[in-house]
Amino acid sequence: MTKTDMNIFDSLESEVRSYCRDFPTVFNKAKGHKLWDENGKEYIDFFSGAGALNYGHNDPKMKEKLIEYIADDGITHSLDKATTAKAEFIQKFNDVILKPRKLDYKMMFPGPTGTNAVESALKLARKVKGRTDIISFTKGFHGMTIGSLSVTGNASKRKGAGVPLNHSVTMPYDSFVDEQDTIPYIERYLEDSGSGVDIPAAMIVETVQGEGGINAASFEWLKKIDELCKKWDILLIVDDIQAGIGRTGTFFSFEQAGIEPDIVCLSKSLSGYGLPFAVTLFRPELDIWSPGEHNGTFRGNNHAFITASAALDYWTDQEFEKSIKKKSEFTLKYLQDIVNKYPELKGTVRGRGLMVGIACENGDVADKVTSECFKRGLVMETAGMDGEVFKLFPAINIDDEALKQGLEIIEESVKSVVKEPVTN
Amino acid sequence: MTKTDMNIFDSLESEVRSYCRDFPTVFNKAKGHKLWDENGKEYIDFFSGAGALNYGHNDPKMKEKLIEYIADDGITHSLDKATTAKAEFIQKFNDVILKPRKLDYKMMFPGPTGTNAVESALKLARKVKGRTDIISFTKGFHGMTIGSLSVTGNASKRKGAGVPLNHSVTMPYDSFVDEQDTIPYIERYLEDSGSGVDIPAAMIVETVQGEGGINAASFEWLKKIDELCKKWDILLIVDDIQAGIGRTGTFFSFEQAGIEPDIVCLSKSLSGYGLPFAVTLFRPELDIWSPGEHNGTFRGNNHAFITASAALDYWTDQEFEKSIKKKSEFTLKYLQDIVNKYPELKGTVRGRGLMVGIACENGDVADKVTSECFKRGLVMETAGMDGEVFKLFPAINIDDEALKQGLEIIEESVKSVVKEPVTN
Amino acid sequence: MTKTDMNIFDSLESEVRSYCRDFPTVFNKAKGHKLWDENGKEYIDFFSGAGALNYGHNDPKMKEKLIEYIADDGITHSLDKATTAKAEFIQKFNDVILKPRKLDYKMMFPGPTGTNAVESALKLARKVKGRTDIISFTKGFHGMTIGSLSVTGNASKRKGAGVPLNHSVTMPYDSFVDEQDTIPYIERYLEDSGSGVDIPAAMIVETVQGEGGINAASFEWLKKIDELCKKWDILLIVDDIQAGIGRTGTFFSFEQAGIEPDIVCLSKSLSGYGLPFAVTLFRPELDIWSPGEHNGTFRGNNHAFITASAALDYWTDQEFEKSIKKKSEFTLKYLQDIVNKYPELKGTVRGRGLMVGIACENGDVADKVTSECFKRGLVMETAGMDGEVFKLFPAINIDDEALKQGLEIIEESVKSVVKEPVTN
Amino acid sequence: MTKTDMNIFDSLESEVRSYCRDFPTVFNKAKGHKLWDENGKEYIDFFSGAGALNYGHNDPKMKEKLIEYIADDGITHSLDKATTAKAEFIQKFNDVILKPRKLDYKMMFPGPTGTNAVESALKLARKVKGRTDIISFTKGFHGMTIGSLSVTGNASKRKGAGVPLNHSVTMPYDSFVDEQDTIPYIERYLEDSGSGVDIPAAMIVETVQGEGGINAASFEWLKKIDELCKKWDILLIVDDIQAGIGRTGTFFSFEQAGIEPDIVCLSKSLSGYGLPFAVTLFRPELDIWSPGEHNGTFRGNNHAFITASAALDYWTDQEFEKSIKKKSEFTLKYLQDIVNKYPELKGTVRGRGLMVGIACENGDVADKVTSECFKRGLVMETAGMDGEVFKLFPAINIDDEALKQGLEIIEESVKSVVKEPVTN
Repeated sequence: MTKTDMNIFDSLESEVRSYCRDFPTVFNKAKGHKLWDENGKEYIDFFSGAGALNYGHNDPKMKEKLIEYIADDGITHSLDKATTAKAEFIQKFNDVILKPRKLDYKMMFPGPTGTNAVESALKLARKVKGRTDIISFTKGFHGMTIGSLSVTGNASKRKGAGVPLNHSVTMPYDSFVDEQDTIPYIERYLEDSGSGVDIPAAMIVETVQGEGGINAASFEWLKKIDELCKKWDILLIVDDIQAGIGRTGTFFSFEQAGIEPDIVCLSKSLSGYGLPFAVTLFRPELDIWSPGEHNGTFRGNNHAFITASAALDYWTDQEFEKSIKKKSEFTLKYLQDIVNKYPELKGTVRGRGLMVGIACENGDVADKVTSECFKRGLVMETAGMDGEVFKLFPAINIDDEALKQGLEIIEESVKSVVKEPVTN
Repeated sequence: MTKTDMNIFDSLESEVRSYCRDFPTVFNKAKGHKLWDENGKEYIDFFSGAGALNYGHNDPKMKEKLIEYIADDGITHSLDKATTAKAEFIQKFNDVILKPRKLDYKMMFPGPTGTNAVESALKLARKVKGRTDIISFTKGFHGMTIGSLSVTGNASKRKGAGVPLNHSVTMPYDSFVDEQDTIPYIERYLEDSGSGVDIPAAMIVETVQGEGGINAASFEWLKKIDELCKKWDILLIVDDIQAGIGRTGTFFSFEQAGIEPDIVCLSKSLSGYGLPFAVTLFRPELDIWSPGEHNGTFRGNNHAFITASAALDYWTDQEFEKSIKKKSEFTLKYLQDIVNKYPELKGTVRGRGLMVGIACENGDVADKVTSECFKRGLVMETAGMDGEVFKLFPAINIDDEALKQGLEIIEESVKSVVKEPVTN
Repeated sequence: MTKTDMNIFDSLESEVRSYCRDFPTVFNKAKGHKLWDENGKEYIDFFSGAGALNYGHNDPKMKEKLIEYIADDGITHSLDKATTAKAEFIQKFNDVILKPRKLDYKMMFPGPTGTNAVESALKLARKVKGRTDIISFTKGFHGMTIGSLSVTGNASKRKGAGVPLNHSVTMPYDSFVDEQDTIPYIERYLEDSGSGVDIPAAMIVETVQGEGGINAASFEWLKKIDELCKKWDILLIVDDIQAGIGRTGTFFSFEQAGIEPDIVCLSKSLSGYGLPFAVTLFRPELDIWSPGEHNGTFRGNNHAFITASAALDYWTDQEFEKSIKKKSEFTLKYLQDIVNKYPELKGTVRGRGLMVGIACENGDVADKVTSECFKRGLVMETAGMDGEVFKLFPAINIDDEALKQGLEIIEESVKSVVKEPVTN
Repeated sequence: MTKTDMNIFDSLESEVRSYCRDFPTVFNKAKGHKLWDENGKEYIDFFSGAGALNYGHNDPKMKEKLIEYIADDGITHSLDKATTAKAEFIQKFNDVILKPRKLDYKMMFPGPTGTNAVESALKLARKVKGRTDIISFTKGFHGMTIGSLSVTGNASKRKGAGVPLNHSVTMPYDSFVDEQDTIPYIERYLEDSGSGVDIPAAMIVETVQGEGGINAASFEWLKKIDELCKKWDILLIVDDIQAGIGRTGTFFSFEQAGIEPDIVCLSKSLSGYGLPFAVTLFRPELDIWSPGEHNGTFRGNNHAFITASAALDYWTDQEFEKSIKKKSEFTLKYLQDIVNKYPELKGTVRGRGLMVGIACENGDVADKVTSECFKRGLVMETAGMDGEVFKLFPAINIDDEALKQGLEIIEESVKSVVKEPVTN
């Protein structure tokens, strides 16, 4: 195979491309937690497609099913016609995920991306409640189409809209204001008819904010948000696109908080294989859609139905969650040790489950760490408004050795950045 | 294989599902222009995934490449990291499609669906021009996320937004008003500073409207729109998601009109295989994006890169366009004959290339025709505000015999609906 | 009296001031159709406060009543408390104006300016119909607060908003497109559910556009607009702020068209004396306001109640309308003669009643004419998007001699501008 | 004089009327702090036109000047033509008010009502900064036209708009949240680029909120708001329409806080006589208006220029401010005594200067108090979201005896409402 000329991207692809700037090589192969580039260099992947590859790359069981399906000329594209592959997914998702968790949700396939799921959730909430406004939270990220962008906090992403973003109000996420509980603020805005904030159709929240900088809301805060929603007749939408599908330790990230959202958005790792796929879940009594009122050409991606069904097998065994938990504890401890050992980093450990990271003093430091990691064969990205958090997203089924190896690379990289570790 | 219980969809899937109501059976296999359901019944597909399957189902060459890629553990999901599969697509698209047509465009991968492409095009136009408004056209359809929906005409889809849709102005499409040329009307709005319509950042237009009812704008009208845009410093966006990729006879639908849009949106049949995929093309001088200013988790769907590259082989041979043209002429003549033969249908033939249909007196008649077709083994949908147009979207590489067979089923169905044909 | 230093305005008043630039002198006295400046120079007033002084300045009967009221310590400011002066106005307006015209309207005092009346009308229409959009017309002018500005056509005024103006759609006014009837356009937009224009709560229209350039809609066109509104369940709002109170020959400008709007906005000459005053009239069944739902500090300007009541006496005698008609015919003929006599002016006579003018080739020509008039002791302004129309607004009770005198000044001014008149 | 039939209002005036419901009698005369109805009953006025009659009714000196001006046929209505009356006001306002306070402001006459002033201020701020958003505050009230309503907190007033209100963000006013300082909260939104709140063009604030329930922001809080604005390059607009013109003890309410806003809105008592009048003041370097970019028919109300000039004489003597202060201290003490003496009232004294009131347990109690007062010959209104505050707005030049008399009526009314006062 001849090697790819990187100039192709420079000359023919838009300046909007980004990750290829951080990881300047041409990748061509992947397996589990490993990536290879055209030079044959191997990388440990602590990036996992920004959360779209929670089970690692090209999982062998899913791969087998997918090849078989394709070879048999299974339906590839079906819009929302009924297909065998779709029926199997629906049934299995209900049996393996919803029922055991006593969740009674209807499924909607809103188009194959996270932002499609968010847009459909907002539409449905507005239709059900007959209200226009949505409450979102500081540093929240929900997607790049205008509806989703309206509930996203990031100023530069918002500016990209080119139009003012309306029909949304941003409330303070847990810990947004130092030493102030944000719940009383939110409650005052709801209860006081002079607050200028109308009762919204819904609140949309991430239990752990990914793009926002690996900010984990406390379970207590999430419970209070849930209570406020119930008290004021507001629908609660959990955007579980990045934090869901096992990333924080359970299938849905909100399980641990003991809440049951009215609407849930899933995408990213839902297909298990990195294929475009999304689902919007909601309580059956909210299902007042007219046929086709929201649609999309790729809402029936059958390849994704096939791999997503296969991926559900991970969740039939209780041991899976336990193993994530174990890996998470190991990782958090390791990161805390790094923070303690290298005080020059001025780091703070953040996150929950395997959605974790270290907030550095600023974005430059975090960038240096990830660059050093990349040189040493570890792919990892940054998050936060200034990119000040380096963010670990290992596959949730990574083997312990590879996890440790990746963490060691991180430590070495931190060390090389801060130069001289304090001995303690 | 046990047969699927249709109740699964009723009980677990949202009421928003639609095509499964029109085609009430469970499909499980597809090949070229044919579909099969679980009962083994065979259908000719004149629906083609609403334009996402222009090359038919599961094209053997693409299939081979895809299976090979998967089997070799090629990268599946890459966001916008550089991959071998992506580089090949970019290079080949430039070599096979852009260069021979003397088109100098940069490529942006905005997320894998048509609405992502449209949202990115609108954002870019607004950024480039520093203006908020977009002119769209009556009966236009551009997608279901809030940005795209704002430039979509359909009242019930718009209502689904749950919020007022702003920053857009709808101008009359070609032939919208009987016996009046709509160009002078549009021009007056632009030239008169008291018109209440501000000079927009862009106009977004389909050369043939699909969802709107198979309305083909004349080449002359399209040229005048292009001239108006140039005169008033407005960007011209052609949404070629449904009409492009050969559907109207040439790769881009606008080639025949002799215009070169500033921005082009492609999706649907771009992957060739029905996989989620989209690209936004624009003149290089418009490429003022900041890295990551628009993004999306599935903007690097490598399976789609593989099949899309394979699909481009169709376009290396000039004969391909000629064959579409021949099939189109045959089809249009056949449809005109039906209209003449069955005056009770009160039909009018519409469209261009293989994006054609018959507008009936109302939606009931068109529905009856498509229902009769379905019974006879032909899958075909309706379009238009009242669903009054039955819409033929055969694969553009369908063999002549199958095309004729499909048309015969349509004639039989029309006959059965209008009961007694006039003999002539 | 010492003379005023014009520097006071330059140094202390905002750059937003405008008329003092066109008429660079300090006025200090006025009576009927005459104005005087501090130098004692006398002017004929063909400006009439942009339509706020239809009865001329400081009408003696109104003046007498007003001084008497003030001397007696009558209530000046009452918000919407009941006062004797208010009761008298309400009763008299009903007896003299509404009843004889068989109009059954309730009166609302929305604040003392035209834009207050428009904003209240739009609010009420939206509330009654539960819809957000309003259809306005090209070149329409309705005021400078954000609600009114949203239905105003002028691009530079709109830009002043500093925010995009939403919830409105601009349709083509009568004769907006050369040789095309605009009614079929409007109808198509309403009847086609794919038009992208939602059925609005109301249409707001001026029967003759003042700021827009003295464009008089034909009675036939107005009737068709009225019919469209009825057919599509849309409220018809006539903004009669400039064209009403006798300006076009009848009290309401719409009387001659034979239509009865659902809502009518009046202000400008309503007080008769140039005092801030406005009223919003509407059919009783639309009166679903909650108490105080719209309010304003100066909605009870009792000085205006007093003079407005006195002004109604003009309308108790049928001869008044006839005299306006006579003056109008004389004026229109005189203007037509000017146009014929001075073809270099490339003028077109426009208007209805005593709301008339000549559209010149461009704004420069019209400006020169008004400047020459000012030198010769006639105050007159321009209108239209480029200020291309010089606009005659004499008092509707001006005596015939003064009218002729003013017209002669105009002819002289035109002559001096075009230099050499054609003899015929 | 025959007495007015109250049915006139019921049958001919809109349901939107409100104060005539609270004070069900027909007023016909007023002088200083006194009002009379048609029955000859005398009332003490603690309402003062909701702040539009700070100097009482029909002040004799202003009255004399006004009658003289009218009798002499002074210009009544001038738009923004230069007039002698206008020049005098501008010069005197600069000499008496601005210069002694070392304030360098240009004056704009935006139309004669408070909401005109607010709309012009928002437009100017947006134009100067090139940003769309405005930060307003909880319970703020700024007017009823769409621009002003967008920065108003009251939910029912907002709902009256009939459209979503955009381009504004409501931040918490001083003391909005119990036991939390709201400044850190506001600062976090400004400093964090992920907050979802874009840096606004301006903040608009009342130093004491009138409609909102007589909430006085502390001087410290106001200073911090001013600092935040400076730090983040945000314009500070003080809406001094209700709190200004001496109501809180100084001409401008913000003087005591030691801040100098970029833009100031004045109206209500500016004319001194209850005539419609408003001015927008701003720093000269902000004066980037184009001529006529904002306008209005009644922006040159010369009667108001005359009385407003006369009213300025009050401010030439330092004793005036001292006397307001004395009256205020007396009033606040008296109110505090009532609160102490009648604990059943559960009252809290609120306000500053002579903009004061008692917040009761709820709106019913406050309503009962004002009703009892009305019976006893005192006119007073309520404020707050539930109308829970009875609000004392005596003339600021009221004589001490009348003030005491009014307060005694209030005490008697409170007593009659709570029945049995505690003796202490």
